[in-house]
Amino acid sequence: MKVGIYTYGKLGRGLEIASKGAPDTELVGVFTRRNPESVKTVYDDTRVFKTDDVLYFKDEIDVMLLAGGSASDLPKMSPMLAENFNIVDSYDNHAKIAEHVKTVDTVSKKHCHTALISAGWDPGIFSLFRLLSECFLPLGKTHTFWGEGVSQGHSEAVRRLPGVSNAVQYTVPNTELLKAIKAGECVSADKNSMHKRVCYVVPQKDANLGEIENAIKTMPEYFAPYETEVNFITEKDFLNAHTGTQHGGELIRRAISGERGEHAQVMSLSLKLSSNPEFTALVLLSYARAVYRMARSFDFGAKTVFDIPPCYVLPFGCEASALEFL
Amino acid sequence: MKVGIYTYGKLGRGLEIASKGAPDTELVGVFTRRNPESVKTVYDDTRVFKTDDVLYFKDEIDVMLLAGGSASDLPKMSPMLAENFNIVDSYDNHAKIAEHVKTVDTVSKKHCHTALISAGWDPGIFSLFRLLSECFLPLGKTHTFWGEGVSQGHSEAVRRLPGVSNAVQYTVPNTELLKAIKAGECVSADKNSMHKRVCYVVPQKDANLGEIENAIKTMPEYFAPYETEVNFITEKDFLNAHTGTQHGGELIRRAISGERGEHAQVMSLSLKLSSNPEFTALVLLSYARAVYRMARSFDFGAKTVFDIPPCYVLPFGCEASALEFL
Repeated sequence: MKVGIYTYGKLGRGLEIASKGAPDTELVGVFTRRNPESVKTVYDDTRVFKTDDVLYFKDEIDVMLLAGGSASDLPKMSPMLAENFNIVDSYDNHAKIAEHVKTVDTVSKKHCHTALISAGWDPGIFSLFRLLSECFLPLGKTHTFWGEGVSQGHSEAVRRLPGVSNAVQYTVPNTELLKAIKAGECVSADKNSMHKRVCYVVPQKDANLGEIENAIKTMPEYFAPYETEVNFITEKDFLNAHTGTQHGGELIRRAISGERGEHAQVMSLSLKLSSNPEFTALVLLSYARAVYRMARSFDFGAKTVFDIPPCYVLPFGCEASALEFL
Repeated sequence: MKVGIYTYGKLGRGLEIASKGAPDTELVGVFTRRNPESVKTVYDDTRVFKTDDVLYFKDEIDVMLLAGGSASDLPKMSPMLAENFNIVDSYDNHAKIAEHVKTVDTVSKKHCHTALISAGWDPGIFSLFRLLSECFLPLGKTHTFWGEGVSQGHSEAVRRLPGVSNAVQYTVPNTELLKAIKAGECVSADKNSMHKRVCYVVPQKDANLGEIENAIKTMPEYFAPYETEVNFITEKDFLNAHTGTQHGGELIRRAISGERGEHAQVMSLSLKLSSNPEFTALVLLSYARAVYRMARSFDFGAKTVFDIPPCYVLPFGCEASALEFL
């Protein structure tokens, strides 16, 4: 499978490492909006091209892996690239996924390509587990806790604001609530009180701090519904203490079954990631295999993880070993 | 979706409860090898038929849910029923799944039926998670712990032995090992030392206890590879203390990623089930929906959970809401 990486930030680097490490994958190159000569890749032999030149590679790349942000990149990039490539993206704005899927579906079907939307861990693996656990256990409640960790999507959304030089956003779970749910207590928490969002922002010189803080706290979907804390720091403090990419989360389905609902049934999924972008990249690369398999069987259009038979993520050449996982 | 339940034990009762509770499912009836008049169902209006009469229902049942044991029932029942019905089974003898899939595949393809083999939680959900986590995180190790809990398959295998009146088998995890793995320690444990198997057996009158114990401890795949403890008890003690059906388990994928493998990445899945047969039944019913959907699109033959797009387990009528789980 020949892949390209479109835009080159933290997720792009993760995709570079994942592609080079996969024996069934060839990395054609990374595409950057910056000057290619200024880009330092992880591996010396990784080729760097300009995003403007991407169409020259139309017939050389089986699946394009998108590493742009959800706030402003992917809504444009995914439909644009789906015209000429099979793609995988990690669009993570939950409230607008349906719209994004529809837009990409129209383009990719028209041009006979396959697109996997919203791969990653949430949306992605957590979504899969949410759907399955609610189907298996219809009488219950699902709780999702994220963090404590760095949300790439939310950090990116802050970095894109006028006056912001650098920023990171930590998602902090309400640990008392998490404890209560794990202990089997009946809690009825408002969805938005389950987490706090804590931002560390390096402002540009002469930026209006009040305006930045307000722009963050009122950003729809990303911050407005949550308790949000904004801290301004210097570039030096940022580089010292806030460049980690750890994240994780826990999804808990507490349910009952039986003639009189007398049996408690609990499923839970937990992720502890030292590098969120590297993990997301590995998931995207796995689903790129599914995209390539579907495109080769003329199964075009926009898909989500719900449409993918799990065996389609197996590395090429390992299909015969699937039953060993049973 | 119209379903039947073939043979009626603990899993059969779970399937009865699951089917009656599902708004998109109609339970045609349960099929028993016993005298139907002697069978006490959970609900008064559940119809009970003889297994011998199953062919009269060939055109009335969309999916037959198999509730037989893996040791001696399913290897015969699944191919036999796949000739006339779409089926779901929970075949759990890991070492022989490939053979069972092949046998059922031949029959079901020939007669244009769809069969889902080895649904449940392990094999089943754990298998799915094993495959996905190893594809996402290729550099790592997967650890599966079962219990402490009652294994229906192993209990059934003991109950089928000559001289055994009743029996239960507890799977007991090696908790020291589990703790070490969770703490991130590097352990290299032999697969079979991760669990102990503890049996409580009610012998028939005048049975040869030594022969029973030997038959259990030497049973290939089920007991031979494990440390196995056999305790003989009275029927009264059995009914007092050993009729629970709790089970559960934990699947942990510990891996690394990064240019130099510098990032630890951990995925884990945990199940805590007060009723193992009721949970297994709910999973089987969910996959019955997938079977029915595939059969209606002429996608025949034997499938496993790896072949099923996750959205196929959604209740009929809920297809449009799939994106909400993202």
